[in-house]
Amino acid sequence: MPQFLNFADADFETLFAALLGAKREDSPHVDDTVAAIIADVCARGDAAVIELTEKFDRLCLTPETIAFSEAEIDAHCERVSAEDRDALELAAERIRAYHVRQMPQDERWIDPEGAELGWRWTPVSAAGLYVPGGLASYPSSVLMNAVPAKVAGVERLAVTVPTPDGVANPLVLLAARLAGVDEIYRIGGAQAIAALAYGTGSIAPVDKITGPGNAFVAAAKRRVFGKVGIDMIAGPSEILVIADKDNNPDWIALDLLSQAEHDESAQSILITDDADFGQAVAKAVEKRLETLERRAIAGASWRDFGAVITVPDLAAAAALSNRMAPEHLELCVADPEALSAAITHAGAIFLGQYTPEAIGDYVGGPNHVLPTARSARFSSGLSVLDFLKRTTLARMTPGALRAIGPAAERLAASESLQAHGLSVRARLEALNRDSG
Amino acid sequence: MPQFLNFADADFETLFAALLGAKREDSPHVDDTVAAIIADVCARGDAAVIELTEKFDRLCLTPETIAFSEAEIDAHCERVSAEDRDALELAAERIRAYHVRQMPQDERWIDPEGAELGWRWTPVSAAGLYVPGGLASYPSSVLMNAVPAKVAGVERLAVTVPTPDGVANPLVLLAARLAGVDEIYRIGGAQAIAALAYGTGSIAPVDKITGPGNAFVAAAKRRVFGKVGIDMIAGPSEILVIADKDNNPDWIALDLLSQAEHDESAQSILITDDADFGQAVAKAVEKRLETLERRAIAGASWRDFGAVITVPDLAAAAALSNRMAPEHLELCVADPEALSAAITHAGAIFLGQYTPEAIGDYVGGPNHVLPTARSARFSSGLSVLDFLKRTTLARMTPGALRAIGPAAERLAASESLQAHGLSVRARLEALNRDSG
Repeated sequence: MPQFLNFADADFETLFAALLGAKREDSPHVDDTVAAIIADVCARGDAAVIELTEKFDRLCLTPETIAFSEAEIDAHCERVSAEDRDALELAAERIRAYHVRQMPQDERWIDPEGAELGWRWTPVSAAGLYVPGGLASYPSSVLMNAVPAKVAGVERLAVTVPTPDGVANPLVLLAARLAGVDEIYRIGGAQAIAALAYGTGSIAPVDKITGPGNAFVAAAKRRVFGKVGIDMIAGPSEILVIADKDNNPDWIALDLLSQAEHDESAQSILITDDADFGQAVAKAVEKRLETLERRAIAGASWRDFGAVITVPDLAAAAALSNRMAPEHLELCVADPEALSAAITHAGAIFLGQYTPEAIGDYVGGPNHVLPTARSARFSSGLSVLDFLKRTTLARMTPGALRAIGPAAERLAASESLQAHGLSVRARLEALNRDSG
Repeated sequence: MPQFLNFADADFETLFAALLGAKREDSPHVDDTVAAIIADVCARGDAAVIELTEKFDRLCLTPETIAFSEAEIDAHCERVSAEDRDALELAAERIRAYHVRQMPQDERWIDPEGAELGWRWTPVSAAGLYVPGGLASYPSSVLMNAVPAKVAGVERLAVTVPTPDGVANPLVLLAARLAGVDEIYRIGGAQAIAALAYGTGSIAPVDKITGPGNAFVAAAKRRVFGKVGIDMIAGPSEILVIADKDNNPDWIALDLLSQAEHDESAQSILITDDADFGQAVAKAVEKRLETLERRAIAGASWRDFGAVITVPDLAAAAALSNRMAPEHLELCVADPEALSAAITHAGAIFLGQYTPEAIGDYVGGPNHVLPTARSARFSSGLSVLDFLKRTTLARMTPGALRAIGPAAERLAASESLQAHGLSVRARLEALNRDSG
């Protein structure tokens, strides 16, 4: 059974704080292993990558076969059914249409002093996308990472995906192709992250690495951060549903389970203003768990980290939600727009009872790579901005320099940075001579 | 003497690659110390912070005196001269005017399937700004961090600034006040970062920490990342000047020295298409070094990391610049706009001979917190976006769910995520019943 909390109870604050603070993921001691792997790939390049792939994935590669050939990709893509291909294409199109709208504008203007100011956005030149192997090898994640990169204008987009025992996921390859990925390498783990960051004989280095992965991949991303950019380090998935009694308990139960089935460390929480409805949802969860394919995983997640919280009103629900800063937030209430206005921290909001979170995982259009573990307090889901950077621009005229240069000199003096001041002074003196 | 490189020489590529790869900063082994300090502050709160401040800053605090009182801030601000205050106010106004334009727009639209999509930006609730003490205690950095935070709408902005032996910098306090900072604490080092991230009895925790600091501060920021958001970890400052022969060598020399005087690890590089001009600038640098107050620092930086590179034409200069991805880039050429168009990676560009980089440090308007160590390949300077986060929004109508739900089911099945599919299926079946 999940936890049942009631806002009205004396111990609510203690229990809720414990729920917020619950550590939901083991951090196995992988850092030393990862450091050694990265050093090995830096030192020996392809040879190290090939050796590690043989060891971990039981797959013999050569520098020539590290990358999938176009013909191999073709062959895999042809194995995908027409229905799956149609679904992937619809998803890719909708994700593209959403992310195109995120493209920021360049700006230039001249201010009252005559200074020309502005900024310009440019894409990262080369990006690497890590795709996990095995069970967590999700074609939808390929689209969610690769489409924004290509919308942003990334010229070279490389995917690494491990193929244990040589088994590739055709849908992953098709998703990469639909998204416009340029290179696909059949490697994984920390060795793939090292290869992307530092390059090898057959893999050119990239500037930014995104994509989910296990503890080894996450540790490797942390280590190469600085040498390259990385996206967030994602934790276990989580959903918060705020629902009033005018909902189908079974629908809400399925929404909670659709996070719980990801991972035993996932967290699904319901907040409702009707205690009976909360009980009905909990009952519906138990019923669905009887037949769910992933009932072992989903059941453990629900039992260990799930919760049903009863609140006196929806304002209290919004306040608790803001403290949790959930990755996914469903608002299944009569007026979801009004409740949404009270939400200050959330990765993604799903409005109304016809918007199950699973729509957002695949075909809604917004990105499904979202901040976990309360990090929506300070960060956002993946977007085109993750594959762009901004260069600021400034151009002074002699008049603008005369107007604001003396203040710069003054501040430079206050910071004891003499050359800073002199670089302005020398120009102003020349201008004064010329006009004098 | 700095290095002199010529693009035409046989060994140019080797020397240039070495210049790119030069390690310009010691990484002292501070990580264990920092981990212990953070653990201590987590465990003992104010008591630990007070003890560490006494140890490192020779200053005895109590929980009541950790924060500056309003009266103390008033008293310090009154010590600032009218000229310095005017200069700071002008800088604050210009930085504000620039950053207000960065505020991103919320968006909502309805797509052809009837799905309502969009996103919404919200500010981080509470941010902490680290300000170094001693020589590197720059009021300009206070403005560059605090103004964007307040423009973004951060409600609670806390500053920490160490005051060794109790000596405070009045300009730092005035800058904080002008920028609208809400709380100022006289603490520094890893203990300040820990206090901001985890909170103590007298300091409430924040959600995001920005600002420069020494190796201990940088290591502490890396450690608290995840618990809170952080800005970049800044390395030593750097400037690249691309200049043709129609420039005053002395001006260019001063621009190079204005980075070199920051830090012995700073790097100043000139690229020119005229070898004689390069020699003239190098000579001007030596002449200025004779009398510069910080000649020991600037001289060491110029000698150890400075370079003058001669190229056959400006296209070659742009190509080298893009490989360097400089923090600051001055384009002192006849047509800086044209050359700027060829620049793909740079933190900030200063166009034309009347825009010395020092203008950007203080009063230009763009932010002076910029990506160092080639990270302009994948990251941007500080902006209002660092204090905002985006929540994506989606709302399906029954019609939209009918249109795109089946594709979501299909993809969920392909990823073996049954509950995901069922959460869509249950709704579609009810809709079909209702309309059947």
